[in-house]
Amino acid sequence: MSASSSFSTAALEALETVLGPEKVLRNPGEPYDRDSSSYQAVPDCVVFPESTEDVQCVMMLANEHRFPVYPRGGGTGTSGGCIALGGGVVLSLERMNRLISIDTENLVAVVEPGVITQTVRDAAAAKGLFYPPDPAGMDASTIGGNVATNAGGPACVKYGVTRDYVLGLEAVTPTGAHIKAGVQTRKGVVGYDMAHLLCGSEGTLGIITQLTLKLIPLPAAHVGLAAVFPSMADAMRAVTAILTSGHLPSAMEFLDHKCLQLVGNELPFTVEGETAALLIVELDGVADQISREIEAVKAICTREGANRLMPGGTEEERERIWSVRRKTSTRIREHAPITISEDIAVPIGRIAPFIELVPDFEREFGLDIFCFGHAGDGNIHLIVTAPERSEKHRVDDGIRAIVQVVLEMGGTLSGEHGVGEAKKHLLPMELSPESIRLQCGIRRVFDPNGVLNPGKVFC
Amino acid sequence: MSASSSFSTAALEALETVLGPEKVLRNPGEPYDRDSSSYQAVPDCVVFPESTEDVQCVMMLANEHRFPVYPRGGGTGTSGGCIALGGGVVLSLERMNRLISIDTENLVAVVEPGVITQTVRDAAAAKGLFYPPDPAGMDASTIGGNVATNAGGPACVKYGVTRDYVLGLEAVTPTGAHIKAGVQTRKGVVGYDMAHLLCGSEGTLGIITQLTLKLIPLPAAHVGLAAVFPSMADAMRAVTAILTSGHLPSAMEFLDHKCLQLVGNELPFTVEGETAALLIVELDGVADQISREIEAVKAICTREGANRLMPGGTEEERERIWSVRRKTSTRIREHAPITISEDIAVPIGRIAPFIELVPDFEREFGLDIFCFGHAGDGNIHLIVTAPERSEKHRVDDGIRAIVQVVLEMGGTLSGEHGVGEAKKHLLPMELSPESIRLQCGIRRVFDPNGVLNPGKVFC
Repeated sequence: MSASSSFSTAALEALETVLGPEKVLRNPGEPYDRDSSSYQAVPDCVVFPESTEDVQCVMMLANEHRFPVYPRGGGTGTSGGCIALGGGVVLSLERMNRLISIDTENLVAVVEPGVITQTVRDAAAAKGLFYPPDPAGMDASTIGGNVATNAGGPACVKYGVTRDYVLGLEAVTPTGAHIKAGVQTRKGVVGYDMAHLLCGSEGTLGIITQLTLKLIPLPAAHVGLAAVFPSMADAMRAVTAILTSGHLPSAMEFLDHKCLQLVGNELPFTVEGETAALLIVELDGVADQISREIEAVKAICTREGANRLMPGGTEEERERIWSVRRKTSTRIREHAPITISEDIAVPIGRIAPFIELVPDFEREFGLDIFCFGHAGDGNIHLIVTAPERSEKHRVDDGIRAIVQVVLEMGGTLSGEHGVGEAKKHLLPMELSPESIRLQCGIRRVFDPNGVLNPGKVFC
Repeated sequence: MSASSSFSTAALEALETVLGPEKVLRNPGEPYDRDSSSYQAVPDCVVFPESTEDVQCVMMLANEHRFPVYPRGGGTGTSGGCIALGGGVVLSLERMNRLISIDTENLVAVVEPGVITQTVRDAAAAKGLFYPPDPAGMDASTIGGNVATNAGGPACVKYGVTRDYVLGLEAVTPTGAHIKAGVQTRKGVVGYDMAHLLCGSEGTLGIITQLTLKLIPLPAAHVGLAAVFPSMADAMRAVTAILTSGHLPSAMEFLDHKCLQLVGNELPFTVEGETAALLIVELDGVADQISREIEAVKAICTREGANRLMPGGTEEERERIWSVRRKTSTRIREHAPITISEDIAVPIGRIAPFIELVPDFEREFGLDIFCFGHAGDGNIHLIVTAPERSEKHRVDDGIRAIVQVVLEMGGTLSGEHGVGEAKKHLLPMELSPESIRLQCGIRRVFDPNGVLNPGKVFC
């Protein structure tokens, strides 16, 4: 049991009485004590609401008994956002997983928060429609969790982030009120943008109970390309040249030379040079159009110095390219006992200058740093590794120094993973005291008793 | 002079002392007493800040002397949002009009709020980049006003609304603090979405002093088409069929039969039938691709019943099509002495059913109602006219009845114009008391003394 002092037997019994015992798990363990970060804590109990009313009941009891509630989707977050660090109740949305409708006339999906992201994508695709956001964990993440963290993914360069697909939502506020926010339509400007305020609030302003998502026409075809460049600077010149020549790829991913060394054996050729970088470009749209466009992209890559090209015209070739990208994280984790995953973002034009600074950080703090990520939107997954667990302080110092430089470049400390618990200590480096004061003020308006996901993000 | 009791000579002198007299206009008149709505009020004075510091000084004095401040862009709003209804100070951002940079490497524009929207679009286009939002008044509206009201436009169906292009901003809060919100990058998830909360807040949460806007590659070519259908239902079937066949037009506009009667003489053929509707479709992208796509769109229109087609392949033909659309508002205003412009939105699939109900409202309330707008996103410009000024109450009753039906259809009372003063009385029809309570709470966090645009939207 957790050491929580704020959760009483009376509270547990009240939950069982109000919800029914089949919706309350006493003595929980895995997976409800963890997510995809390194944080772990066992909650006092887990509740499994099956309706908006159930969620309202939990929040009303939380205010009455003053116990903390931690909303949880698929548990794929990397920032510890859903961990019950103070003990209390984990509220799992896994049973609120109805896919209510894919509406081809209005081009929207109406879903409950517990639906798996890939399920939404598949259901839309089956009707010729497209839900573009594609976070890495989409086979296991829930759509509610994606919205709560405003999840990203490779498709962002063309299609934007999760928030861009949230038209409207229903939520239960921390005090147990049921609110509707946003619209069912493509547009709406009545009052403040409450739907998008909840989106990315990491489960601190409300618990989403229903979502209306924007869908768009499903692209008919895809084509890919991987290109090896002598350096990141060459690769990034190609990225800028592609984007300013009228092409808008549906993905533009990169691996730095250290990642390339780990996954190089997956490539059909040997990568030469100490500074080489891999760029993956994918286009979607009408088949004959994108097959012409990919030729133009190839020509740009060659002009900017690409010396090896890997075609991605067939499904098999595309899969081979993406498997190189996907294997990168795994290989890095096999490589070092301690790995900390950051997801900073810099303006696109600063990706190459930033990556050129990485060896300095490695030397100064005695670290191995691997960079890969989303070249088209500046979001760099930075995996900082140290050879020994005892070296954790060097990792922390190094990350702080890196974030400082990222912010000076006009960047942000998190492009898509969120703050949760993991980046809380870094947040004041990016946000001013006045901005934090206003945001804590907003949080208090929603949650006067501080019962929803307390301690996370800020306040 | 206004009857404001809250603006003193001492306040006026303090403004002149702090800003310098060249930035303060005593005894102002046109245009600072009006916008594009029917509201008018003369402010006590107008201030013309030239920097963020100037804006901060005004807000600090406003809190000290407790006078209201009404931020103003190009004065093109249709909801009275910038009118000094209680007297006080209009803060015009017209001198903060520097176009700081169009950054082709990072695909962003950095601008001050007073830059005219079309200037941003032209400057981006000159460098091969595209700022898509295209509100009707873009030749005169400011980019700051567009962001403050989250302006829409025909391009929304493909490209989304103004908010989708705001990456980050700087603002002065109602208490005079300078804050940065959002990011300079394509992605960022640190803290609440403060940038997008300010966007669409209609000048009630802060005064935007700088914007970082997302740009995208400029489409190389455009092609259009206008098609006359026997009825709105036929036209809307075509809209849905186009959107679910993999086409994403850059505009899909419609005129109902009453509008067609007013502008029919602009068309190269006679429109027959009492229920005809006009659909305008435009595609943008690579030339040979969209010229193939427009053929597919034509085929869909014909299949769904279009009996007259007007090609839009050349610049001249496109201009002719758009001039029909643009002349609609003018002709309606010439037609009746009293016109109230509403901009409701309904789910796309409800456009035709909604328009079929319009004759019932006309009969019941003795009104003439004209409908045109954005078929691709459900945003209907509804111009309600009455033959005599004394009939205004019938217009008000009719609008209330229409909004009730719109909300029952899952729509919203404003798709892009905003609430301002004009739609304040309707707002409680759409937002619940709890939602309004939370939003007023947010407003109080930002503006404890109620000095910024008081009385507008709500609270």
